[in-house]
Amino acid sequence: MRRTFHDDLDALRGLLIVMAAHVTSAMRSASRALLDGDRAAATAVVADDAAVDEMRAQAEDKVCELLARQQPVATDLRLVVASLHVVGDLERMGDLAAHIAKIALLRHPARAVPAELTGVIEEMARVAESMAWKVARVLEIQDVSVAAELDRDDDTMDEAHRLLLQRLVEGSSHGVQAAVDAALLSRFYERYADHAVSTAKQVIYLVTGRPGNK
Amino acid sequence: MRRTFHDDLDALRGLLIVMAAHVTSAMRSASRALLDGDRAAATAVVADDAAVDEMRAQAEDKVCELLARQQPVATDLRLVVASLHVVGDLERMGDLAAHIAKIALLRHPARAVPAELTGVIEEMARVAESMAWKVARVLEIQDVSVAAELDRDDDTMDEAHRLLLQRLVEGSSHGVQAAVDAALLSRFYERYADHAVSTAKQVIYLVTGRPGNK
Repeated sequence: MRRTFHDDLDALRGLLIVMAAHVTSAMRSASRALLDGDRAAATAVVADDAAVDEMRAQAEDKVCELLARQQPVATDLRLVVASLHVVGDLERMGDLAAHIAKIALLRHPARAVPAELTGVIEEMARVAESMAWKVARVLEIQDVSVAAELDRDDDTMDEAHRLLLQRLVEGSSHGVQAAVDAALLSRFYERYADHAVSTAKQVIYLVTGRPGNK
Repeated sequence: MRRTFHDDLDALRGLLIVMAAHVTSAMRSASRALLDGDRAAATAVVADDAAVDEMRAQAEDKVCELLARQQPVATDLRLVVASLHVVGDLERMGDLAAHIAKIALLRHPARAVPAELTGVIEEMARVAESMAWKVARVLEIQDVSVAAELDRDDDTMDEAHRLLLQRLVEGSSHGVQAAVDAALLSRFYERYADHAVSTAKQVIYLVTGRPGNK
């Protein structure tokens, strides 16, 4: 039986779900590495980032196959371009988890995050992981209600980022190394959240933009 | 006369050249804003970032038109996907220039970069602008010899980034605010360079991957 455009798009979506699950797990491990000093978790996240890059390449292969086989036009074509945005964002989320794990590794066995900032970073870690799960959820069960939640989560993340930078500047008990690490870590969490929002918006387009809204 | 695939691809390349020139100019202005305290330049970079985002949307529209009209397959399809990578990278380069301009604005009329770090940031600014020009050059005259140069430039940038972080940690004459600003600025320059390398690689594929190597 001939594969339809939507069969192919669903197959592609399957790959995106696996990729989203992977970058969610990478962020959870990176945060554990950072906050609990789990060296093995940090090493695994850095090593596994290549797998995410490989998944991006596979997803782009699938997109090319889909375009060649279905030759979609108009809205269908837009959906395919949206899926390319999603793979790009997910790959960056994987990179950012690896950046966090690398800072944890660099400071190991010491902790990169000074005690007085642990609470804020824990909050950022919690929000980042929750956002990534929501992205996987919207991909998997096409629950578009999470879009509004993700916007609120992103506000929470931005506020935590602002608070952390303010505490860094006002505090005096940590050295410059800790301040530099914390500023970069905070930036990585904040960017991860931005990519999660961007991914979710594209996914919602991907799942609602189809004719008939299956 | 029927437009061929390569006519359409060249038209798309024209848009990418304009976009590359724009993000090169944005980075030059952002660096001037940062290093010379040029407030007007900073404001203009932040305001103009929306234009870069708009160019990305236009380029993606052109890609969709091209795909619908030409229905390319195999290598031609790869070239189109490569061009989408290029627009994504260029848009990020515009964002990063805007991030640098925003830090300059936040600290104005004070300078965000402490005197002892000005030399390193000047070097990073110089390398970033030069890299962006090379990307525009490879897009415009299809001079693929710049690829090796860009790899060397990227090494120079990475080394400057490493040096700056080291000086931050070793130095004691600047406060935490300056250290946080400098770490983020350095990160933005380093990312800009990464995107320039990534763009150039895709562009080289775009200009040499065509059959007959026109």
